[in-house]
Amino acid sequence: MNIDHKPKAVVLLSGGLDSTTVLAIAGAEGYECYCLSFAYGQRQAIELDRAAAVAEAAGVASHLVLRLDLDKIGGSALTTAREVPKHRSATEINSGIPATYVPGRNAIFLSHAAAWAEVIGATDIFIGVNALDYSGYPDCRPEFIAAFEKMVNLGTRAGSEGGGFTIRAPLMRLSKGEIIKKGLTLGVDYSQTHSCYDPDKEGLACGRCDACFLRLKGFAEARAVDPVPYQTDPEQKS
Amino acid sequence: MNIDHKPKAVVLLSGGLDSTTVLAIAGAEGYECYCLSFAYGQRQAIELDRAAAVAEAAGVASHLVLRLDLDKIGGSALTTAREVPKHRSATEINSGIPATYVPGRNAIFLSHAAAWAEVIGATDIFIGVNALDYSGYPDCRPEFIAAFEKMVNLGTRAGSEGGGFTIRAPLMRLSKGEIIKKGLTLGVDYSQTHSCYDPDKEGLACGRCDACFLRLKGFAEARAVDPVPYQTDPEQKS
Repeated sequence: MNIDHKPKAVVLLSGGLDSTTVLAIAGAEGYECYCLSFAYGQRQAIELDRAAAVAEAAGVASHLVLRLDLDKIGGSALTTAREVPKHRSATEINSGIPATYVPGRNAIFLSHAAAWAEVIGATDIFIGVNALDYSGYPDCRPEFIAAFEKMVNLGTRAGSEGGGFTIRAPLMRLSKGEIIKKGLTLGVDYSQTHSCYDPDKEGLACGRCDACFLRLKGFAEARAVDPVPYQTDPEQKS
Repeated sequence: MNIDHKPKAVVLLSGGLDSTTVLAIAGAEGYECYCLSFAYGQRQAIELDRAAAVAEAAGVASHLVLRLDLDKIGGSALTTAREVPKHRSATEINSGIPATYVPGRNAIFLSHAAAWAEVIGATDIFIGVNALDYSGYPDCRPEFIAAFEKMVNLGTRAGSEGGGFTIRAPLMRLSKGEIIKKGLTLGVDYSQTHSCYDPDKEGLACGRCDACFLRLKGFAEARAVDPVPYQTDPEQKS
């Protein structure tokens, strides 16, 4: 065994603020990073362009994009024509499961990550879920991550014959402001990232959906300026 | 609420012997069945034709086929050019994880099933896994199914706000012979099903891979005749 060889990790990368920060954390911990993104019928395909740019800038070992037919399953404002909610407060955002919830998404993403991890010999799987500013998604809770880790170690060769997988969620207990501060310390270029659920045709963020709200609140808390441009508010224009 | 309304179930349907029997069991239990199949890069796409025929014959409420890129992940003789093992005994088959194991497959399949179940309002998810004649796959074990159920109920709206899902594996403790006997009692037409890992160009089963071996052994145990045709063995011919 080559002791100089870096351990491998699969990093779920959406091209958003959280997963980009997680990639920087995994890299700083010394992992050779294999990034995994999904073309899952999300309305804002711009995410995938940003994920590719982030992966390239980070010099990752590999960036795999897999297709999923989640739009055929439906049930989410992110994959169907349902309207993305706007202008919600932090209390409203955390008061229940929002329309942008995609049924089964993190279980599906993490299951694919584990499959790839098994094939390439990675032991760690990184995901940017967060239990504080988490938009009310049940599959971002620590109980879910722990249950997933147990399940996947029972259901794979790596788990039943080898040391198994560890699901790493380094942002779980951080506020959005703390995530951004950590990323800035690690040199993350947030101008490459995309968070908005409802960008315009040029890809400009709306500034009013839950994702934009949490992002902008996070930059404010981190006493930093968000480098991405936002749409001029049509309500302000008129 | 209409008390005459049938409860809904999602049934994972490969078009093989086990899942076709499971569909008959779910139907006999009074469920309105929503069948889910996957085009996952498996080498024998004939499975999907058989799944469609089985679903149509059973008069199911819906049959959804979703694409997956498991062939891009690799690691299995079923999705890549690795050779399917032949002529193995029951002891050899059950002695470890075989080359036909597909990393993460049942976790990925069941996660999609749960997503669809949530959208259509189904409470039960049926899967034809089996712990006796199971070919050594870790994701066919009862511990895996129990852990999956726990995970998915933590990670979905249905699990965190409603009654959640039950993962039903009615074949878990049955031998292949008992599965076939049960199916024949329920009127399953096994001529529609496909089990072979390595069919020829006409779709004829090889009779020598693990799947064919277990199927033929099962029919023998059930004192029944397998209605599907098999290839003439080239070794017998020459």
